[in-house]
Amino acid sequence: MILPELPALADAGLAARVQHAIDHKTKPLGALGRIEALALQLALIQGVERPQLHAPQLVVYAADHGLSRRGVSAYPREVTPQMVANMLAGGAAVSVLAHQQGLALTIVDCGVDARLADGAVDLRIAAGTADASAGPAMSIVQAEQAVRNGSAFVERLPGNALLLGEMGIGNTSSASLLMQRLTGLPLADCVGRGTGVDDAGLARKQAVLQQALAANAGAQAPLEIAAALGGFEILTMAGSVIAAAAQRRVVLVDGFITTAAVAVAEALRPGVLAACVFAHRSAEGPHVRWLQRLGVQALLDLDLRLGEGSGAALAWPLLPAACALLADMASFDSAGVSNKG
Amino acid sequence: MILPELPALADAGLAARVQHAIDHKTKPLGALGRIEALALQLALIQGVERPQLHAPQLVVYAADHGLSRRGVSAYPREVTPQMVANMLAGGAAVSVLAHQQGLALTIVDCGVDARLADGAVDLRIAAGTADASAGPAMSIVQAEQAVRNGSAFVERLPGNALLLGEMGIGNTSSASLLMQRLTGLPLADCVGRGTGVDDAGLARKQAVLQQALAANAGAQAPLEIAAALGGFEILTMAGSVIAAAAQRRVVLVDGFITTAAVAVAEALRPGVLAACVFAHRSAEGPHVRWLQRLGVQALLDLDLRLGEGSGAALAWPLLPAACALLADMASFDSAGVSNKG
Repeated sequence: MILPELPALADAGLAARVQHAIDHKTKPLGALGRIEALALQLALIQGVERPQLHAPQLVVYAADHGLSRRGVSAYPREVTPQMVANMLAGGAAVSVLAHQQGLALTIVDCGVDARLADGAVDLRIAAGTADASAGPAMSIVQAEQAVRNGSAFVERLPGNALLLGEMGIGNTSSASLLMQRLTGLPLADCVGRGTGVDDAGLARKQAVLQQALAANAGAQAPLEIAAALGGFEILTMAGSVIAAAAQRRVVLVDGFITTAAVAVAEALRPGVLAACVFAHRSAEGPHVRWLQRLGVQALLDLDLRLGEGSGAALAWPLLPAACALLADMASFDSAGVSNKG
Repeated sequence: MILPELPALADAGLAARVQHAIDHKTKPLGALGRIEALALQLALIQGVERPQLHAPQLVVYAADHGLSRRGVSAYPREVTPQMVANMLAGGAAVSVLAHQQGLALTIVDCGVDARLADGAVDLRIAAGTADASAGPAMSIVQAEQAVRNGSAFVERLPGNALLLGEMGIGNTSSASLLMQRLTGLPLADCVGRGTGVDDAGLARKQAVLQQALAANAGAQAPLEIAAALGGFEILTMAGSVIAAAAQRRVVLVDGFITTAAVAVAEALRPGVLAACVFAHRSAEGPHVRWLQRLGVQALLDLDLRLGEGSGAALAWPLLPAACALLADMASFDSAGVSNKG
């Protein structure tokens, strides 16, 4: 599979110039904390001293999962198309937040097991993945197609910012499996309650996921692992992340599932992580552990565990704020303010 | 001193109705985490099921401190009027953020030790407080005047949201002293590095603050303590907080200094805390401890330690987002989405 090449997202000279500008703004050194690091990252992603954001795109990638027939979720499988319809009608959290924040919202059908209402972009691979506890969730051909779909889709999007969202009953199971294989952590450290299974449900979920790992132990290359354990929405998103990084778009990552997509993208095309800003630490337990493994810090910590891109939408205003501070704050010299004695 | 009366900000019936609405939105129970608690708080502050925010006002309260002549700050005293000028000219962090977020920005001169450029609202008490290490920072008459000024100022403001900001070289010292007297914690637990003193500076700051506590040990009533240790900007802000709560405005609190103002307001008029949303946990060490003592959680945790209202401006978008979710998200019934099995 031919993947887009990445530009050099780490330019030491540019980084030094931007840091110098930040350090001479009218504020104590470092006083804007992580917003300063965010401003620097946005500058490096765009390769300019004064990054600007325009036409941000929130994209919700939806698909169904064979594993959802195995009782891994608190919600029935038909909720996937129902929630897509709710998103299209404007009633879902992500719809409300996208509207309120001025984010263009697109729903992409990567493989929902139902006919969808008009309004979703059709990037369907199949009507849901196969049951990963009995073998690969999808074929390599399907996996490659999903990655290509996601990549081509983003290349045609306007703007320079991609906010990731997702919908798919059962997709925390897929994300947990991918986390286990990509990090090597014990499965128990990779599994949470998803959208709300109880203790018995959690034990059942772990047992099913253990079967899925056993059934797919032969998968070794990143694309094989992703095909064996992933969902169509996760693979499509991974393709989008690679294309976004290649085009110097910032990627605003939402929660656990979108982090799985970024981890798959990073495994397929190392370096894309530099284009990713992590919106929040999810209340889905393993998410914090995965962020640590990836060596990244998220912006918000608000006990969110909804997915859909809701956390990305909530964190979004921090990005244009960081750009505005970098562009418009005065320096001590220009403002005639005395610096530290 | 006659202070505005507070309305009942805790209405159990309203709280139950709003929580019911939140719990029937198309999302797993509690999945929007602290945004749900924020939506409920905003509803209770306004006394309605669907709170709405309009014409938010970011107000920066500026004043000088007698203690700043005692070497408690890394920055010279003249930085207060210089930074006020920078704010008025649009070059300060708070100016940039207010502009970018659509917040009306007003600078209030509560007692800066310099003639200010045109543009600041004149609520001057005097040209800076007296040196609190030698006796009260201000008289009771001055303290009452500052509180009245702040209260009357807010009563005339448009909109229904007040974002607190401040500027005053030396005001972390005043906030530390107030924290010590209002919480009873050891002084060392109440003192941080402000805008960046080094180890020697921190030791000097603590010694000076110990003198100030000794010099004002006789102050006992809340207003006496506030007069002895406070700054003009902190007392004026406290008056504004009381008036805002009385008028069912939400108060968005910034960092350490504005928390001091809220704590003074709560001591003068218990109950105002219910109208306060805390924007962020400051990197100024004692702030987190004070938030714990007040029994509140802040929204952001981004290692900010600038003050000015910059943290309040960065957190602001979460408030209209919470209102929009409460008003516009569909319920499981209305959207035809299957609930948890």
